[in-house]
Amino acid sequence: MDMWKRFCDHSFYFDAVELGIDVSKIGTFDEVFAKVDREKIFREMAALESGSIANFDENRMVGHYWLRNPAIAPSGDLKTAISEVWNTLDRFAYAIHSGDICGQSGKFKNVLCIGIGGSALGPQLACKALSHGPRNKMALFFLDNTDPDGIDSALAELEGKLGETLVIVTSKSGGTPETRNGMAEVNFAYERAKLTFSRHAVAITCEDSQLDRQAKKEGWLKCFPMWDWVGGRTSIASVVGLLPMALQGIDHKKFLGGMRDMDSLTRVHEKTNPALILATAWYAATNGKGEKAMVILPYKDRLDLFSKFLQQLIMESLGKKLDRANNMVEQGLTVYGNKGSTDQHAYVQQLRDGMNNFFVTFIEVLSDRSGVSPFIEEGITAGDYLEGFLLGTRQALYENGRESITLTLGNVDPYHLGVLIALYERAVSFYASMVNVNAYHQPGVEAGKKAANTILQLQKSILQHLRNNPKQSFSPENIAQAIGSDDVEIIFKLLEHLAGNRRIQCQKSTHFSQNMYQFLS
Amino acid sequence: MDMWKRFCDHSFYFDAVELGIDVSKIGTFDEVFAKVDREKIFREMAALESGSIANFDENRMVGHYWLRNPAIAPSGDLKTAISEVWNTLDRFAYAIHSGDICGQSGKFKNVLCIGIGGSALGPQLACKALSHGPRNKMALFFLDNTDPDGIDSALAELEGKLGETLVIVTSKSGGTPETRNGMAEVNFAYERAKLTFSRHAVAITCEDSQLDRQAKKEGWLKCFPMWDWVGGRTSIASVVGLLPMALQGIDHKKFLGGMRDMDSLTRVHEKTNPALILATAWYAATNGKGEKAMVILPYKDRLDLFSKFLQQLIMESLGKKLDRANNMVEQGLTVYGNKGSTDQHAYVQQLRDGMNNFFVTFIEVLSDRSGVSPFIEEGITAGDYLEGFLLGTRQALYENGRESITLTLGNVDPYHLGVLIALYERAVSFYASMVNVNAYHQPGVEAGKKAANTILQLQKSILQHLRNNPKQSFSPENIAQAIGSDDVEIIFKLLEHLAGNRRIQCQKSTHFSQNMYQFLS
Repeated sequence: MDMWKRFCDHSFYFDAVELGIDVSKIGTFDEVFAKVDREKIFREMAALESGSIANFDENRMVGHYWLRNPAIAPSGDLKTAISEVWNTLDRFAYAIHSGDICGQSGKFKNVLCIGIGGSALGPQLACKALSHGPRNKMALFFLDNTDPDGIDSALAELEGKLGETLVIVTSKSGGTPETRNGMAEVNFAYERAKLTFSRHAVAITCEDSQLDRQAKKEGWLKCFPMWDWVGGRTSIASVVGLLPMALQGIDHKKFLGGMRDMDSLTRVHEKTNPALILATAWYAATNGKGEKAMVILPYKDRLDLFSKFLQQLIMESLGKKLDRANNMVEQGLTVYGNKGSTDQHAYVQQLRDGMNNFFVTFIEVLSDRSGVSPFIEEGITAGDYLEGFLLGTRQALYENGRESITLTLGNVDPYHLGVLIALYERAVSFYASMVNVNAYHQPGVEAGKKAANTILQLQKSILQHLRNNPKQSFSPENIAQAIGSDDVEIIFKLLEHLAGNRRIQCQKSTHFSQNMYQFLS
Repeated sequence: MDMWKRFCDHSFYFDAVELGIDVSKIGTFDEVFAKVDREKIFREMAALESGSIANFDENRMVGHYWLRNPAIAPSGDLKTAISEVWNTLDRFAYAIHSGDICGQSGKFKNVLCIGIGGSALGPQLACKALSHGPRNKMALFFLDNTDPDGIDSALAELEGKLGETLVIVTSKSGGTPETRNGMAEVNFAYERAKLTFSRHAVAITCEDSQLDRQAKKEGWLKCFPMWDWVGGRTSIASVVGLLPMALQGIDHKKFLGGMRDMDSLTRVHEKTNPALILATAWYAATNGKGEKAMVILPYKDRLDLFSKFLQQLIMESLGKKLDRANNMVEQGLTVYGNKGSTDQHAYVQQLRDGMNNFFVTFIEVLSDRSGVSPFIEEGITAGDYLEGFLLGTRQALYENGRESITLTLGNVDPYHLGVLIALYERAVSFYASMVNVNAYHQPGVEAGKKAANTILQLQKSILQHLRNNPKQSFSPENIAQAIGSDDVEIIFKLLEHLAGNRRIQCQKSTHFSQNMYQFLS
């Protein structure tokens, strides 16, 4: 009976949003909860929501909570801007569905979303989790990388259909290379098909960005505004998430309603604040230092991208070198997982028997399906098995000292997906307060872009050198010397890549370091 | 120049299979390599390949290496059995493609694979990585769970097409509940469509299993044999992987050829054994105790399921409580990842700046695409950016003390996918030798099945009690007492699930522990 008492004391059910959170299997929850500086958390939350520069490294406000409730935005202009986008979006989706806006081959049937990071993960999650399958209003495709073969694969799926495909290009600055490259390649494909790209294109971008100027100059179908106070990983409530949902026929207003209702609950300055409970459980499970990984196990196929979405939301927000006082902290919280019970036939073997270096978040969905389930054996449905696997695994882990959280949803629908995502967004905000990091910038991502640029400059120098000496062949070391670089290894890697795409010639030696490279005549 | 020297000394290129392995960014590689008991590893490898009971806990041989080279199988019967399946498979795929074997609505156009764990992950990886897109010979669908809503989604995609859909049911014993439930639900769908399931069904199962008997009794189109010496996670070279590949139009013989060639290389008793290099690098990076997670980052969209495949192969093989001498070791090696550069806009922020609790395996593919790439800016292609992101990230991690391995492939084709998978299969065998665990059983998975059964029994008792007292309502504690169980928490969870599917009635109280449940009259 002790476990039942602990369960009753540590399980919270939020009637208003039909969500349960059970932290009874996080051993030190109470001790950690007692120590949490709630005053700080709520003060920071209030400041952020009222428009303070919460993302101080980038000198930006953090406004994703306004997106579902413009009434709380800190200025009249912002309130208006947010609700105007809603109206524009509704009218635009209606015009696309009705055929008032058409592609060159007729009514739009497909949507190709070009974007990376939050510009892809949010719409991918929502559109998979809330799909009506063949009854979706439009078919969705994604280009979320700069892999030429991946671009070819996406375009092959759309072959002969580009004239009825709406292309959404999402990039705040317009400068994200993967997105810009994808757009350029898709543009070429429209040219090859003797179609005009701009007559099928929509931009989602900040005003006066490179992309905004291009779209306006070329007369694209539409330009939706983005704002610097919305981060990619929290952009699902902006037009970035809402437009693909609306086009597919998902009730994006119910989705926003779910987020708004959860936001209200997470503003409550009490113990029964769901995001405070969740963030405290994370802290308790990982000692506030990410000592254990968060394994996300939704027992529902529709939610199998949720872990990937959270991987970005949590790891990109919390994975920081410095805290807010510039102390070296190397913080973070590792997230992985797919779905149950499928994963029980894979890595859950290690969770049960291997290292105790994780805690699980089980996501339980009470409703098995929209219709009635047949019995597979006497009195037992396929869904009973799913529930049985969840409960059995959870208990076995617990008995073996492996901690877990369980979230319970009645259903996976637009409203409850909104509830779930808003819960995690706020829990990330709270946890960042607890460990004192800026959850809203991503210096490593910016640094990654710069590092790639340096390397592309090196490639230009290499090609220049080979072009200037067309009859000669060079070893990697020769080239390094000639162009005045000591990155022989990277020069070698670049040469191999260029040769692998028949852009230069390679004469192999017995050891690769002695390979000789030459301009292709 | 020091880094270049280290790179040259620690990078290995295997001409025969066109694969490169660079371990220069694993700091203690040399020290660990010097200590590896190679004699033990090669002795165990030879014993395993010659048919010893390498999976001693289950009293089974471990024969996946024979599947691509029957000549080395330990008996004439096995040699014959393996090559006979190849012939049967070829003839069957030909008959399906030619229309000699048809469904009730005509030529088969779709394949629905029902299976979980290795029975799904292998075919999913191969069929995605080697897809020809719209030019695939057949369209593939998967059912890999017992989620009723997920089953509905898969069936919705096949609505009106079941008569031209071939259903492959894969289960060694036929007793895996998820697979059996999926099959039962699909069977119902055929009945609703007034079609005969058996005329569209193929089984892959051990001889005389429950599934084998059912298939033979009902006269299914075909029964392909499986053997107890092939584990699910290493079944991709068996008919489990080969049949979906062949049906989709993938050259499965080249795939097997790649595996066979890699197997030959990993039998070499020398330093230049690619699997020995890889397993040593894992050991060096994780201190032989899984102290760091393995992040898999292929910079190629086609390979984005590879990490999920490895997650099973590695974590299910190595995640063990006991070593071979029954010492408590709680071993394992955590695997996660998706693809680059996409992930650079997500969790790679944490890898760059957060905790140093991982090492990365970069997978570089030299060829960008089958055709010629257009220039996005002067002299630079989309593929150059992809390469630049890989090299930039790798270097930045290295400079920050984060270790990595880099694998280089010329291309992702059937042969090289075979090479890659066979490399990891053998590396897992070797690593298991190093840390002395049985890599071929999965006691936790079996335990999970049993735990679920206990819970389903509890559900039966609950329903029995409510049915016997139809006019009364009960709290979870009442029921626990009545049926003589002290698992009140699980009883409550089961009641909520039953009520959530309208199979019993729930009368809510202010606290959920006081909810009252009643039989639905």
